Amino acid sequence: MSHCVEIISVGTELLLGNIVNSDAQMLSRKLSELGLNVYWHTVVGDNPERLEDAVNTAKARADIIITTGGLGPTCDDLTKQTLAAAFGRKLVLHQDIADALRDWFEARGQTMTENNLQQAQLPENCTIFPNACGTAPGCAFEEGGKHVLMLPGPPSECMDMFEKQAMPYLAALGEGVILSRTLKIFGMGESKLESLLREQMNGMTNPTLAPYAKEGECELRITAKATSEEKAAALIEPVEEGLRQLLGDLIYGADVPNLESVVVSLLKEKEMTLGCAESCTGGLIAKRLTDVSGSSAVFKGGVVSYCNEVKASMLNVPEEVLEQYGAVSEQTARAMAQGARKVLGCDLAVATTGVAGPGADDMGNPAGLVYIALAAGEDVFLRKMELPNASRQRVRTTAAHHALDMIRLYLDGKHPV
Amino acid sequence: MSHCVEIISVGTELLLGNIVNSDAQMLSRKLSELGLNVYWHTVVGDNPERLEDAVNTAKARADIIITTGGLGPTCDDLTKQTLAAAFGRKLVLHQDIADALRDWFEARGQTMTENNLQQAQLPENCTIFPNACGTAPGCAFEEGGKHVLMLPGPPSECMDMFEKQAMPYLAALGEGVILSRTLKIFGMGESKLESLLREQMNGMTNPTLAPYAKEGECELRITAKATSEEKAAALIEPVEEGLRQLLGDLIYGADVPNLESVVVSLLKEKEMTLGCAESCTGGLIAKRLTDVSGSSAVFKGGVVSYCNEVKASMLNVPEEVLEQYGAVSEQTARAMAQGARKVLGCDLAVATTGVAGPGADDMGNPAGLVYIALAAGEDVFLRKMELPNASRQRVRTTAAHHALDMIRLYLDGKHPV
Repeated sequence: MSHCVEIISVGTELLLGNIVNSDAQMLSRKLSELGLNVYWHTVVGDNPERLEDAVNTAKARADIIITTGGLGPTCDDLTKQTLAAAFGRKLVLHQDIADALRDWFEARGQTMTENNLQQAQLPENCTIFPNACGTAPGCAFEEGGKHVLMLPGPPSECMDMFEKQAMPYLAALGEGVILSRTLKIFGMGESKLESLLREQMNGMTNPTLAPYAKEGECELRITAKATSEEKAAALIEPVEEGLRQLLGDLIYGADVPNLESVVVSLLKEKEMTLGCAESCTGGLIAKRLTDVSGSSAVFKGGVVSYCNEVKASMLNVPEEVLEQYGAVSEQTARAMAQGARKVLGCDLAVATTGVAGPGADDMGNPAGLVYIALAAGEDVFLRKMELPNASRQRVRTTAAHHALDMIRLYLDGKHPV
Repeated sequence: MSHCVEIISVGTELLLGNIVNSDAQMLSRKLSELGLNVYWHTVVGDNPERLEDAVNTAKARADIIITTGGLGPTCDDLTKQTLAAAFGRKLVLHQDIADALRDWFEARGQTMTENNLQQAQLPENCTIFPNACGTAPGCAFEEGGKHVLMLPGPPSECMDMFEKQAMPYLAALGEGVILSRTLKIFGMGESKLESLLREQMNGMTNPTLAPYAKEGECELRITAKATSEEKAAALIEPVEEGLRQLLGDLIYGADVPNLESVVVSLLKEKEMTLGCAESCTGGLIAKRLTDVSGSSAVFKGGVVSYCNEVKASMLNVPEEVLEQYGAVSEQTARAMAQGARKVLGCDLAVATTGVAGPGADDMGNPAGLVYIALAAGEDVFLRKMELPNASRQRVRTTAAHHALDMIRLYLDGKHPV
C-alpha cells in the first residue's frame, strides 16, 4: 500500500492572504519525490475548534499527517496541544530542549521569557526534530498506524527541518520512488493536445501523462512509480519516445525551465551571438534572455524601437520601407532584424513589430497582429502571428515565445518558420 | 451575521507541488477586505471522489464555497459536474457560451474541438461569469442559503474574474460597503514600515491598516466599513493624511497599479518623452514601461547594451570611460544616460549598469551593485544601489524600481536621488 498524506497548515495569516502557502508546495514536491501521495492540503487559522476538526478529518482519511506552523511560543500557537489531544497523548516538558532553549537565548544575550518554555513541551514518546534555523522544535510520532509530523511555519525553518529530519523519518516508511519528466511544448494549445492524447492518457496508470497550460505554452508531465529510479526511468522512456514521434519539433525541451534557457544553451553550444530589435514586445525578449544567468556570454544587446524615428535612426530601417509599408509590416520586420544584426554586430538577430493592443493602430492594423523576423547571415525568416481578442499581455508574451521559438529551431538545424 | 468562506482549489499540480496556491492567497486577501471570513482552504486533486468529499465537508461548515480550477476542456476538469451534483443541480448547455466559444476559436483561425464545448456546460439557473482572459467561464449559484462560486485556475483568469464578476456578486451579499485605499510605497521595507506603524495599527478597528510586501515594494491598505461609500471615504481620509505626513515622498501613488503607470501618466501630463539604456536590467525597464497601454505616446525606445561594444557603438559611451572606470561605474552610468537621451532624441533617459549576479563580475564588483542614472537636459542624477545576497531577479527588479522612482520624483518636481 502506498501511503497517503495530508498537509495541514496552521495560521491565520494564510487565511488573510498575507502570505502564500509555500510550505505546502515545497513539502508536496518533496513528498512526491519520496513516492508518497499527497491527497489533501488543508489550511486553518489559529483557532482550536477548527484545528481540532481539521485534525479529526485528516485522521480519518490520511495515513500521514504533516502540520506546518503553530509551534511557536505565543498563545496563538496551538498545534502541539491539539494534535496530542486528538491522538490521546500528553504533552510533557522535555528538559533537554528547555536547556537548549535557555542556552540559545543566553548566547544571544537575551533572557528567555516563560512563554518560550512552551516550545519544550512535546508529546510523550515522540521523535524530536531539533530546529537548526529557529527556536521551535518539531516532532513526529506514530499512533494506531497513523504518522504525525509537526514542522514550524517559517519557510526556511520548515524546509531545513523537513530535509534534515523529516525526510529520513519518512523515507523509512515509503516503498519505491516516483520519477517525473516534463516535456515543454510551444505551438499547440492544451485542449488540442489533450484531445490528441486523450485515448492514450485514459489507458495509462503507470506512468501517467498529464498536460498543463502555462502562459501560452504547454507542458506534458510523465510520472512513473517503481521500486528504483532506474526502473521508473525505463517506464518513462518509451512514453517520451512516442510523444516525440507524435509531436516532433513542437517539443522544445525536457526538464528545462523555459524557451529562453534553451535558446541561451544552444547559442553557447553553437558559439553564436544574438541581438534583438523590439517594437511591440518593448524589451520583453531581451528581458527574458537576460533573466537567464550567464546570458551575457551570447546575448550582445537589443534596441527597443518604440517609434518610427528610432527604427530609422538606430536600426537603419529605410524611410521608404516605413512610408510604403508602415511600421507594422513584413518588410519593416525584415529590415529591423537585418538592421539589428548589423548595428549590434551579432550572428543572429530577431525582430518584432506589431500591435499589442488594446485596439487597432492608426493604420488599421488589428490588435494581435505581429510580424516576427529572424536574421541569420543574409537570410531572413518571417512569421506572421494573428491573435485577435487576446489581452495586451498575452499578445506580447506569445510574440516573444514565437521569436524565441524561431531562434531555437534555427539553432537546432530546423526550418524556423 | 458575517459570512464564512471556504476556498477549494482543485488540481493535482498543486498536490504535486508543481505550482504554489497563489489563487487562494489572492482570493483570501480580497475576501478579507470585503469583510468575509475565510476559515478554510482545501486543496484536492483532479479526483472525483475526493473532490466530492471536500465539497460535502465545505457544504456542512461554510456559507460561501469558492472553487478555483477544474473548469477547462479536458477530462480532468471535474469541478462543475461535482459541485452541481453535490447541490442537486443539472449541468445544461448554454448555447450563447457555446457560440461565443466557437467565435473565439474562429477569430483565432482555429477549429473548436468537441471537448471545448464542455466549457459551455454550466449549472442550470446560475449567474455566468464570462472569462475575459481565457475560454472557461465561471459561474455562481445559491442553493439552500449556501453560495457556490466557481473560478478558473490560471491566476490571471482567476484574478480578473474575481475582481470583475465575483466581487460585485459577493458585495451584494454583505451589509454596508467596504472601501479600500492602497498607498504604494517604494524605498522602505515591510518590516521597517510595520514597526513604524505597529502601535497605530494595533489600536485601529475601522478603518484597518495593513502593510503588504510585494517584489521590493510595499503597500499600505486602509480599509473602512460604513453604511455608505461617502462615510467610508470620510473614515479613510484622515488616516491617509497622517500616513502622507509620516512617509512623504516614499508614497508614489494611491490606488495605482505600479510605478511604471505613474511614470507614463506623469510623462503625458508634462508632455515629455523618455528613453532608456539598460545593461544589468536587460530590457526590464523598457518592458515594464511598454506594459502600460498608451506608453507609445511618451516612450520612444531604449537600448539594451549587454556588452561594452554596444555601449560604445550604440550609446556613444567613450572608450576611455569604459577602460578607465569599467562598465559597472558611476561614470559609465552617466555616459549611458546622456548617450541614450541624445541618440534616442528624448527629453529624459534613464540608464542602469551593475551586477545582477549570481556572483561578482570579472572586475570584482559584487552582485547587487547597480548604478542608476537619469539624464534630463544637461543634468545627470545618480543613485548607487547595493543589495548583497539578493537573487538575480531581485537585483534586476529593484534596480528597475529605482530607475522608475527617479523618473517619477523628477517629473513630480522632487530631487530624484
